[in-house]
Amino acid sequence: MNAALLEDLRRIVGPDWVVTDWQAMESYMLDVTALPIRPVPSHDVVLVKPANPEEISRILKLANERRVPVVARGGGTGVVGAAIPTLGGIVMALERLDRIIEVDTENLMVVAEAGATLEKLLKAVEAANLLFPPHPGDEGAQVGGIVACNAGGTRAVKYGVVRQYVKGLEVVLPTGEIVTWGGKLLKNNTGLDLLQLMIDSEGVLGVITKVTFRLYPRFAGTATLIVSFDDRHAAIRAVPVILQTGVIPLALEYVDRDVIQISADHLGMKWPAKKGTAHLLVIITGSNDEDVYEQAGIVVKACEKLGVVDTVVAETKEEQADILKMRSELYSVLKPQVADVLDMAIPPARIADFLDAVDEIGKKFGTRIITYGHAGDGNLHPHLLLELHKRGLLKAVKDELYHEATKMGGVITAEHGVGKVRLKEVSMCVDEKQIELMRGLKKLFDPNGILNPGTAIP
Amino acid sequence: MNAALLEDLRRIVGPDWVVTDWQAMESYMLDVTALPIRPVPSHDVVLVKPANPEEISRILKLANERRVPVVARGGGTGVVGAAIPTLGGIVMALERLDRIIEVDTENLMVVAEAGATLEKLLKAVEAANLLFPPHPGDEGAQVGGIVACNAGGTRAVKYGVVRQYVKGLEVVLPTGEIVTWGGKLLKNNTGLDLLQLMIDSEGVLGVITKVTFRLYPRFAGTATLIVSFDDRHAAIRAVPVILQTGVIPLALEYVDRDVIQISADHLGMKWPAKKGTAHLLVIITGSNDEDVYEQAGIVVKACEKLGVVDTVVAETKEEQADILKMRSELYSVLKPQVADVLDMAIPPARIADFLDAVDEIGKKFGTRIITYGHAGDGNLHPHLLLELHKRGLLKAVKDELYHEATKMGGVITAEHGVGKVRLKEVSMCVDEKQIELMRGLKKLFDPNGILNPGTAIP
Repeated sequence: MNAALLEDLRRIVGPDWVVTDWQAMESYMLDVTALPIRPVPSHDVVLVKPANPEEISRILKLANERRVPVVARGGGTGVVGAAIPTLGGIVMALERLDRIIEVDTENLMVVAEAGATLEKLLKAVEAANLLFPPHPGDEGAQVGGIVACNAGGTRAVKYGVVRQYVKGLEVVLPTGEIVTWGGKLLKNNTGLDLLQLMIDSEGVLGVITKVTFRLYPRFAGTATLIVSFDDRHAAIRAVPVILQTGVIPLALEYVDRDVIQISADHLGMKWPAKKGTAHLLVIITGSNDEDVYEQAGIVVKACEKLGVVDTVVAETKEEQADILKMRSELYSVLKPQVADVLDMAIPPARIADFLDAVDEIGKKFGTRIITYGHAGDGNLHPHLLLELHKRGLLKAVKDELYHEATKMGGVITAEHGVGKVRLKEVSMCVDEKQIELMRGLKKLFDPNGILNPGTAIP
Repeated sequence: MNAALLEDLRRIVGPDWVVTDWQAMESYMLDVTALPIRPVPSHDVVLVKPANPEEISRILKLANERRVPVVARGGGTGVVGAAIPTLGGIVMALERLDRIIEVDTENLMVVAEAGATLEKLLKAVEAANLLFPPHPGDEGAQVGGIVACNAGGTRAVKYGVVRQYVKGLEVVLPTGEIVTWGGKLLKNNTGLDLLQLMIDSEGVLGVITKVTFRLYPRFAGTATLIVSFDDRHAAIRAVPVILQTGVIPLALEYVDRDVIQISADHLGMKWPAKKGTAHLLVIITGSNDEDVYEQAGIVVKACEKLGVVDTVVAETKEEQADILKMRSELYSVLKPQVADVLDMAIPPARIADFLDAVDEIGKKFGTRIITYGHAGDGNLHPHLLLELHKRGLLKAVKDELYHEATKMGGVITAEHGVGKVRLKEVSMCVDEKQIELMRGLKKLFDPNGILNPGTAIP
């Protein structure tokens, strides 16, 4: 790393916040992408930890002048390598911008700096007796990151994705300008909506430094149902039937019985539903226990005619927590054997068809492709095992799965994003003209291409 | 209008669909912007009515080659002159693309062509026992238009604005390419989100030809409350208190008692709430009458401590319809005296402060500035009267109002958009760098600037 650059960086952020020792910065060079496909970071990097947007602006101006790549970094919980500095240059950690500036109970908004963790945000919001509705998963994620990735999660069926909650942004552009968009506003039609463009831009158009999110009232009660079927198509047919009742569950997940068993066994727990091979996990929330109970009744009744073989209703906190643990630990349990976790979105009603196709492709390649996901919003995560990687079949299997998804009107990434590992795959669902426009946008915001090069845009 | 161009247009859409007679096309040269500020259309125009995206593509290629301005047009229900062809050229009516292609009850989506009216869309969705949640107002609006304007309306407090429902788009770019984004997908993170950029682009980046909207289950019951206060600040303080109960009303509107009286008198109707000067109109929806009744009780109880002087609960359809009529006709009643209707968004908790400032400004200029609006989402519509226009004070009053709104963290347009009449005003809430980026975007999508020039971007 160029000594003059290091000197300038030290002048901007102070010598304590410029790190050049590999061991001290190694943990900033990763994310949680599965190892076999995780991009390898350059070692020609310097880690800087600015304290505020002004320092970030000065760093970006410097980098822009010297044509040095800059990768802004949140909690490192991404799974597509977006935050890994493959080209070397400056890695900019946002962790010092970690304040929850305000939970505004009058306007039902929270204002937070980009480096605040999701955990911290959730705690502050909860302390004000309000709700930040989406829950994208790992609470070590940082606020800026969940916006830059438009994070999803299991609650999208009821509450949508992160985009829906972003009402204001402060961003440092690659050319150094600090701009703000929106605010504590629920409507805002002042010309082309650049705020929307920043959401899901994966760090290539600007560095998000502050976010205003809309909040909601908390839900008071929850119940978790496991609705069991002997036939996966019957289970998936139940999804729109449930939604049409007017009850919109917080989460509506599909699992094969034998897949969830892997997790139960590993955790030494018991999956409470004994019958059926195809299970829907339905989490219902309401304003009080009675409301939840009534909604659960509506769901159970609506499913009755659809070939349900069993329904388990968990009402105690412990039972519900156990079920959720088995579901949410599934990924961790499988992870040691996994070479790549895919992330298709398809029209929700096609999920059973897609799962059948997945099984067929698995058979063809002599492997089991474990797949589960968000039935309510059509987002599925096929897990490709290490043994496929060892047999050199990862790409072939992936291509066939992508082909099936796009044939059904789907896309290759629903919530994980493109990052660095899906770059070549985007063109399977985005045409050449659109990619040309994306490149044009990049050039417009970042004429010298310094921000997170090789990410998001093929 | 150039004869060769007319000939080419006739070749593309057929001679029946090219209109050059001013009387036959006059109604296509307007929107519903208040007359004193409505832009004047050029008479050097031709009206074309293409049948499909392919014809639109050919028209745009032709216009692009010849550098002829093109204004795409929906229902003409806009209020900022966006669809008025001030520079002459081609006016392209989308009305022949008017099919509701599919109401998909399995995926809870509707696919419609851009020229279908909102009325037609709502009917088709209702017939399938589903709900298109937003209701931006005039049902003569067309699907493409409500997306191009990111329409809002009274239901945003519960359901958000149109953006939230747009899951797929087919668009013809100014350079003639027909592109599609998204589909029947609830999550989609495949690179920079150009679909979002098209929403609220007011016809300057492309011509929307087909839209996929997400649908919801219908609500079964409704109740309308009028909660009366003697103090506007107390009324506005009740807004977050209501929202914090967990009951999110379909609409949460604020009216001064004497303003709604104008509408009641004009319609020969009776506003059912007698007491108080400051009224909140709260529309509650639920899965059944009992649910609605319970929610209404929660709202009434939450307001009790806040200085409520009276609460009227309307449960019959007729009573509710009457109340809604008085509220929704307010604009029509006032219209003959109105020179401009403003459209600020401010943080919802500041509404009472803003209304006080409006009254002060009115006093200063010796006028009454009638203001009402969406208390739940912070969107207010101050009405500037014709007499102000006659006294040459329109701009002075408007500037002071804008100044107050932006001081409170607001913007000059919440749901109406920029169009042609707010162009000079955008810079009061959007900085120079952002305008530069908007211009760059325009150039990227529309290198020759043929699409709706002089709109949306200062």
